[in-house]
Amino acid sequence: MGTEATVTALWRLFDQRRFEDTRPLFAPDFIAEWPQTRERITGPEDFIQLNRAYPGAWRCSLKDIVVSGDRAVTEVEITDGNCMVHATSFFTLRDGKIVKAREFFADPGDPPFDRDRWTERY
Amino acid sequence: MGTEATVTALWRLFDQRRFEDTRPLFAPDFIAEWPQTRERITGPEDFIQLNRAYPGAWRCSLKDIVVSGDRAVTEVEITDGNCMVHATSFFTLRDGKIVKAREFFADPGDPPFDRDRWTERY
Repeated sequence: MGTEATVTALWRLFDQRRFEDTRPLFAPDFIAEWPQTRERITGPEDFIQLNRAYPGAWRCSLKDIVVSGDRAVTEVEITDGNCMVHATSFFTLRDGKIVKAREFFADPGDPPFDRDRWTERY
Repeated sequence: MGTEATVTALWRLFDQRRFEDTRPLFAPDFIAEWPQTRERITGPEDFIQLNRAYPGAWRCSLKDIVVSGDRAVTEVEITDGNCMVHATSFFTLRDGKIVKAREFFADPGDPPFDRDRWTERY
């Protein structure tokens, strides 16, 4: 599979909660970084189990993807029906397998200061 | 300029707080989307002025960029020396000018549940 197909498959399987089925998409030396909490997850197995154990029945909707060779970045909306978070994931592949994911999770909220002179809400 | 040079220049000029100098990088029909607050900024002028007016003396450090044709995604660390936010920006260009930016701002924090069975802090 190419980069786009591999990354798209990961999100589709996560959305279907078929966590075990994502194993072939990862290189054995896969590492994930979550810089907001300064957490590192080492190896596909811990990443799969952590995602499976994440509290809540989350669904994942791929909104955008930018692919360049062995790199891909995705925008994904993750929701449990009540809460929603915007996930952006910077992937690196090697020989068609995901070897690195660096992910950010951005919460919805109100504007932190009065700025409607320049913005409109949608 | 190519896509990478244009986007890199934007962040360099923002970092140097040379907001007015970014004007040639934008298409006249530029739009920015900040999905977390559901805010839209229409036109380069409002985007430039909003960034200039943003409270605090923020510096921008480009950490990663993925470019594909007229698309680019950046990871940027924005800090005022005390607070830090991870910004991820999905850019679209047309004829070498930035016509769209969809941006997410992810705050640092603590892990939301006990998950150190699968993660290590760094």
